[in-house]
Amino acid sequence: MAGQVTVRAAVASDVPVILEIIKELALYENEPDKVLATQESLHNTLGFKEGSKCYAKTLLLYEDDKPAGMALYFNSYSTWRAKPGIYLEDLFVRPQFRGKGYGTTLLATLAKEVLDIDGARLEWSVLRWNEPSIKFYEGIGATDLGKEWQQMRVDEDALKNLAKRGVFGDGK
Amino acid sequence: MAGQVTVRAAVASDVPVILEIIKELALYENEPDKVLATQESLHNTLGFKEGSKCYAKTLLLYEDDKPAGMALYFNSYSTWRAKPGIYLEDLFVRPQFRGKGYGTTLLATLAKEVLDIDGARLEWSVLRWNEPSIKFYEGIGATDLGKEWQQMRVDEDALKNLAKRGVFGDGK
Repeated sequence: MAGQVTVRAAVASDVPVILEIIKELALYENEPDKVLATQESLHNTLGFKEGSKCYAKTLLLYEDDKPAGMALYFNSYSTWRAKPGIYLEDLFVRPQFRGKGYGTTLLATLAKEVLDIDGARLEWSVLRWNEPSIKFYEGIGATDLGKEWQQMRVDEDALKNLAKRGVFGDGK
Repeated sequence: MAGQVTVRAAVASDVPVILEIIKELALYENEPDKVLATQESLHNTLGFKEGSKCYAKTLLLYEDDKPAGMALYFNSYSTWRAKPGIYLEDLFVRPQFRGKGYGTTLLATLAKEVLDIDGARLEWSVLRWNEPSIKFYEGIGATDLGKEWQQMRVDEDALKNLAKRGVFGDGK
């Protein structure tokens, strides 16, 4: 029998649990060394430190008093529709809590939040090799934008080099 | 000879220009009928209406007093790094102002903003058929994430259906 399920927004005292789940997720994605986040940097960027900006929101799903899953997300925007949306940066249900619909519960909670803000869409990215997740997402009505759209990123040195180019009129 | 170039954040009185450029961009992407944005909905979602939330920021590039290009963006978040980033939703330089480096100027301005907020990355999506843009982006140091990641979206009826499923513990 499953226990009592609660989904709620994370608070400052949840930061250790958030970091633990982030590390589990990185392990699952075969990139355990990529986690540079610390409790302090999470406090500073998730709006828990006084005066700091909240760059992302976190939902935690509990089964009784056990943290079973997490969704970390931020608001996106559709220009065509002039409406906000939600971009789901990370969704994770701990292995021992899978098969109980908790992933769907977290996604449904976010879908409801999109409707509550009169938003247009819920979006996220998935690793192409992660076929079980892709099947799960297709099952809840998601479509694959990857055939039409290609995602680009600038970071590290390329970001610093780009920042030096042509800012405020020097780029002619 | 190129004129004086200025890049600045949009203000409320720029909304008609923003909508005009959005419509030009939609025409360029062969989807002129997809624009549902109005001056009013832009006011309400870009933070120009008192008490409304700002879901996206807009940079305008002027050549003398002529609006030549636009970048519309919002903050993203990297969980691994616990750092914010910028997601560029739309970048457009009007056809008659191309070839002057204005696209680079707008991207460089955003790259600088990423560094200013101690952020990790600047990201965006590009239509796969848009090879000139992809070449341009690769030229300024962007990498293609599309080989590894697949983008998913839920909207319209699928979003409403998902919102009804399993919210706050009903999804077992």
